Amino acid sequence: MSGTWGEYLKLSLFGESHGKCIGIVLDGLPAGLKLDLPFIGRELARRAPGKNPLSTPRKEKDEFEILSGFFKGTTTGAPLCCVIWNKDQHSGDYSELKDTVRPGHADYTAMVKHRGFNDYRGGGHFSGRLTAPLVLAGAIAKQVLEKKGIMIGSHILNIGGIREDHFDSLRIDSGLLWKLTEQEFPILSEEAGIRMKQEILQAKAKEDSVGGVIETAVVGLPAGLGSPFFDSAESKIAHLLFAVPAVKGVEFGTGFAITQMKGSEANDPYALADDKVVTLSNHNGGILGGITNGMPLLFRAAVKPTPSIGKVQQTVNMASREETQITVQGRHDPCIVPRAVPVVESAAALALLDLMIEKDGVTWMN
Amino acid sequence: MSGTWGEYLKLSLFGESHGKCIGIVLDGLPAGLKLDLPFIGRELARRAPGKNPLSTPRKEKDEFEILSGFFKGTTTGAPLCCVIWNKDQHSGDYSELKDTVRPGHADYTAMVKHRGFNDYRGGGHFSGRLTAPLVLAGAIAKQVLEKKGIMIGSHILNIGGIREDHFDSLRIDSGLLWKLTEQEFPILSEEAGIRMKQEILQAKAKEDSVGGVIETAVVGLPAGLGSPFFDSAESKIAHLLFAVPAVKGVEFGTGFAITQMKGSEANDPYALADDKVVTLSNHNGGILGGITNGMPLLFRAAVKPTPSIGKVQQTVNMASREETQITVQGRHDPCIVPRAVPVVESAAALALLDLMIEKDGVTWMN
Amino acid sequence: MSGTWGEYLKLSLFGESHGKCIGIVLDGLPAGLKLDLPFIGRELARRAPGKNPLSTPRKEKDEFEILSGFFKGTTTGAPLCCVIWNKDQHSGDYSELKDTVRPGHADYTAMVKHRGFNDYRGGGHFSGRLTAPLVLAGAIAKQVLEKKGIMIGSHILNIGGIREDHFDSLRIDSGLLWKLTEQEFPILSEEAGIRMKQEILQAKAKEDSVGGVIETAVVGLPAGLGSPFFDSAESKIAHLLFAVPAVKGVEFGTGFAITQMKGSEANDPYALADDKVVTLSNHNGGILGGITNGMPLLFRAAVKPTPSIGKVQQTVNMASREETQITVQGRHDPCIVPRAVPVVESAAALALLDLMIEKDGVTWMN
Amino acid sequence: MSGTWGEYLKLSLFGESHGKCIGIVLDGLPAGLKLDLPFIGRELARRAPGKNPLSTPRKEKDEFEILSGFFKGTTTGAPLCCVIWNKDQHSGDYSELKDTVRPGHADYTAMVKHRGFNDYRGGGHFSGRLTAPLVLAGAIAKQVLEKKGIMIGSHILNIGGIREDHFDSLRIDSGLLWKLTEQEFPILSEEAGIRMKQEILQAKAKEDSVGGVIETAVVGLPAGLGSPFFDSAESKIAHLLFAVPAVKGVEFGTGFAITQMKGSEANDPYALADDKVVTLSNHNGGILGGITNGMPLLFRAAVKPTPSIGKVQQTVNMASREETQITVQGRHDPCIVPRAVPVVESAAALALLDLMIEKDGVTWMN
Repeated sequence: MSGTWGEYLKLSLFGESHGKCIGIVLDGLPAGLKLDLPFIGRELARRAPGKNPLSTPRKEKDEFEILSGFFKGTTTGAPLCCVIWNKDQHSGDYSELKDTVRPGHADYTAMVKHRGFNDYRGGGHFSGRLTAPLVLAGAIAKQVLEKKGIMIGSHILNIGGIREDHFDSLRIDSGLLWKLTEQEFPILSEEAGIRMKQEILQAKAKEDSVGGVIETAVVGLPAGLGSPFFDSAESKIAHLLFAVPAVKGVEFGTGFAITQMKGSEANDPYALADDKVVTLSNHNGGILGGITNGMPLLFRAAVKPTPSIGKVQQTVNMASREETQITVQGRHDPCIVPRAVPVVESAAALALLDLMIEKDGVTWMN
Repeated sequence: MSGTWGEYLKLSLFGESHGKCIGIVLDGLPAGLKLDLPFIGRELARRAPGKNPLSTPRKEKDEFEILSGFFKGTTTGAPLCCVIWNKDQHSGDYSELKDTVRPGHADYTAMVKHRGFNDYRGGGHFSGRLTAPLVLAGAIAKQVLEKKGIMIGSHILNIGGIREDHFDSLRIDSGLLWKLTEQEFPILSEEAGIRMKQEILQAKAKEDSVGGVIETAVVGLPAGLGSPFFDSAESKIAHLLFAVPAVKGVEFGTGFAITQMKGSEANDPYALADDKVVTLSNHNGGILGGITNGMPLLFRAAVKPTPSIGKVQQTVNMASREETQITVQGRHDPCIVPRAVPVVESAAALALLDLMIEKDGVTWMN
Repeated sequence: MSGTWGEYLKLSLFGESHGKCIGIVLDGLPAGLKLDLPFIGRELARRAPGKNPLSTPRKEKDEFEILSGFFKGTTTGAPLCCVIWNKDQHSGDYSELKDTVRPGHADYTAMVKHRGFNDYRGGGHFSGRLTAPLVLAGAIAKQVLEKKGIMIGSHILNIGGIREDHFDSLRIDSGLLWKLTEQEFPILSEEAGIRMKQEILQAKAKEDSVGGVIETAVVGLPAGLGSPFFDSAESKIAHLLFAVPAVKGVEFGTGFAITQMKGSEANDPYALADDKVVTLSNHNGGILGGITNGMPLLFRAAVKPTPSIGKVQQTVNMASREETQITVQGRHDPCIVPRAVPVVESAAALALLDLMIEKDGVTWMN
Repeated sequence: MSGTWGEYLKLSLFGESHGKCIGIVLDGLPAGLKLDLPFIGRELARRAPGKNPLSTPRKEKDEFEILSGFFKGTTTGAPLCCVIWNKDQHSGDYSELKDTVRPGHADYTAMVKHRGFNDYRGGGHFSGRLTAPLVLAGAIAKQVLEKKGIMIGSHILNIGGIREDHFDSLRIDSGLLWKLTEQEFPILSEEAGIRMKQEILQAKAKEDSVGGVIETAVVGLPAGLGSPFFDSAESKIAHLLFAVPAVKGVEFGTGFAITQMKGSEANDPYALADDKVVTLSNHNGGILGGITNGMPLLFRAAVKPTPSIGKVQQTVNMASREETQITVQGRHDPCIVPRAVPVVESAAALALLDLMIEKDGVTWMN
């Protein structure tokens, strides 16, 4: 299976990079939800390429069309199917790829799994382009979460070796997160941002690419979301984050660095603030025993350098079974990280909405 | 939901730390599987406490009993229910915990989620003890995978700040992994192991605890396991890893460090070895586009320091709504990492077996 | 898969007729539910054999034990595992069945599916005895539904050719249903009941068996439960009813007889009663478009004659691949219908509770 | 949830009667399946209205378009999304229905469930038109099953009170079934067919409608499909059959009439035919203990009279909360039964394919 996810909110993802369209069915939304369509458009625009020299000049306007489940401005309770029709695709660019598998991409594994029947054009169903419908669904989830005062935002923690400070895990507010979502290249420190962009442009000049880490925070979450074990909040969120191509690591709270701490440092002590139970540090990133504790939820996702690069690479021609070389032609991103920000946020929004429905049903949405 | 997992192999986990038993139902195993019961016992023993001064002196013999689905030495095709009866529990030790929530544990979140009706004794259903049935199920999955020549093994990469080398991601073999599974404290370098143990004993002496990172490798996997997006191999494995209490980070291949590399370094170039497609490096940890590529699968799991410590900690009494202090009594692990090794391996074994069944059905098991 | 069911409330069924126990895990119940254990016992007693000459003299006291998820008299929110330990089983009676398959039973299909590895003693996992844990789970569901004023009850519509009147589909009330659940042999007309019992005793005298139809009604349901298409209320209920061994037909409302009506007769016209929308007839059995309409929900389940009979039957010895004859020894039910009543009601209760949770979440239960 | 189904083959159904389109996503088909597109078209044509005076003159050409998962004439292994664009809809006909609920339809229950936000035009998502994508998916399932020699066919057992003979449950062959699928009005006896059509035309003349029973057989099935209890072959098939609007009863084998038989009559005795185990009667309809036994699988589905009739009916205006009358305008079917035949067959084909994949994986399809 590659295309279905969710327990309370069911997603069904379909489409190919160079096929007719890409799309998603969302099942489980209640009737009567007003959808802010311009907001969905803005979220898609955050993911879209071609906005600046940091990304591919390929234009994907990513205009979406709702095919079902929407009537007179609100959801109807029936499954919502949305598609983005493909345009401006240069299929010719990819004809070489039929047999010569691109290193770092899914070309080889797709060919093995689907025994050569996969649509290889532009990666087909395996293309990063399929994250656009995920952002579409995520934009709907974000709108719904916002009704409960839940806000998601991110900054770029590092691009290659250029790094800025972490979020202050105790003092994140929705105002900061909102500001970050309005930035094309969201960072906390302008100076670090300038150096990160230079890093990207330098890689681009060398026909190479760079990766980075996205740090995401969610504020306004109630305590009590998630479960111990199989449906822990970490499991649900990480499941969707690792569904995003290019994500190779996920950590919550202090993450891998927590292993360098003593228990007496890592345990977040409890205190009362206005009779509300809070923790005095937040190394667990707002999740204990798989369940949210009401503190800011914090995670980081590692995004690998874009595999499409102009440099010559060693590879294999699968038809002739011979070693060969490849130079990936076409218009590629020297760095996918800024465009991955709304994708990572969407994964979190969808996982959290599923957990919210488990906890409270759907009636609160209206 | 806290207790069910799986698409092809369904798990149903139940039990409490100080209740009658802990157990698991496995549904989806084919009939006619001979089970190596002593192997299951040995895997449980790897997780069991009380073996040495590095862990809690609490004895949990963890003898298991198969209640159903097993007849004349083989599985019957019906659901396999296995339990471990609880013994040697000192419920008295935990009576204080009813109201005073332990920092770093699930006490507070369990209380919020279950509105005070949770079994609080020893963490109840949220206890790390529930990982024993997971190891039991994992031991069965491992046996099955071994029939296809698939071997899983791990070493401890670091305890606190004491660190040893990574696996050589290209040259891991089943012999090495086998040897590691036979070690009580699995490490590649004996010298590093000695220092790690010292680190643990020092923390113990200070009534404190330490965490660490487990690095796990899987060899012998076929190419083609997993799917793009929602059921990526990374998603499935990470979902189960984050179901393990104390895991706060998961990364595949070079993981977070891949964000420091250029695309030209991070892409694993293809070559032919005896007409088999291989990669010349393995920064993607054996997974591309969510699907295994036949190279060693490699991941790391960050395990936080044991939250149970003898030091005085700040907390809140939930009944009186007052700030207070707690000293966690009882017999605790200064470091859970060595005991977490078979748990982490079980999570991987179960996720991979589910993917194997998706790909090839169940007939190959016999 | 044979053992898991449910979307919001997850069931995991396990055990064998002559193994150690039979049992079930219920996952998805909220914390804090007081369970009426004597009521569960009474429901199990309704299903238990050996009460009168109409059923097998085999005694199954069916005392249940809760292994997990229950603490201080209420559910904890963690999975509830309940078992019934097997006693009074005469395994010797079934030794012949290893190879000689009983007509009308699952012996042959179980052997094919599980390639001879199934536990054949008394039908093993395929035994009707596995409906006891279903009744146990159903008894919990019934208690919960009752909090919303939802009541389920049944009468025996026919035993063989002896038939009584249908429920009046518009005028069923909870008082009548309650009275029916207290009868060992629930019927509307005492006179018909006497003749049905005679029919059973006559079959018994001839070493034969009879079947019958159970008619079940549910009152107090809110309108709006269920969905069009895949999760229609009919689909959910019928799915569980057909999970009950021996059920060969299910119909809702007027059922098969509605095909003899004109649209102008079958359509249930709407009217207002105290400003509540009601229908003036109830041929659709309380369900339209897969969704409850607030009228009494009505269905019938056809239960085939007990396959275990003392008469000589033609069959095949699977080991020698020869045609042979069989006389099923042991203590059998000449008619399973009265004992199937609580099973059928449990199936409905569980399906409806799952739909209630979908609609309203779980908070109303407390 | 209304729109997702399946364990191994996942379906996601979407669309509205008068919206842009109706469609379905199929996830879980292997790559490399050649699809016989004209066959899909012919199956859709069997369901389409407007072919003869027995059905509505409304034309629905139901041309389908594959949006994803199909490349160079075969499936790619990625989700297959197919849509049928809506044309020739007279939305004006339905404007009255916004408030005045049609008896026998889902108008009232849809309004309650979706609190008035449902698309009411022509029944919206609740329309029988949504069965077209189900037939589309079923046509694919049928093609795949045919590769294993599995053939599905049906005849109309009765229209109102006009009835013909049952299938001979032992002697159905694929030739007969094939012939039936080629008939617009499939019957075993031409004479009965003539009288059934007269029954339909008489109802039409009176602005009324009639229902009927469809009897379906499946031959060529292997023994061993299905499971005891929750995923019994009966449960899976009945679940999908009851997802079809208008189906109010489902029975297998001799069905409800088996309750009139003795065990000694109803048990199907075993014999050997060319060393193959067969039964000498087939009252269980090819399923024992939830698992196929290799005999013809036989079921019947009761289809209620079309609720849309020209006669005046009592109803309620939901906006004004007043009792009122309705005459359903528009072009309606006096009898839906012939058009329901491919829908019922599709439900069976999809359920059986899901069970086939469970048993044998997907590799046999290629």
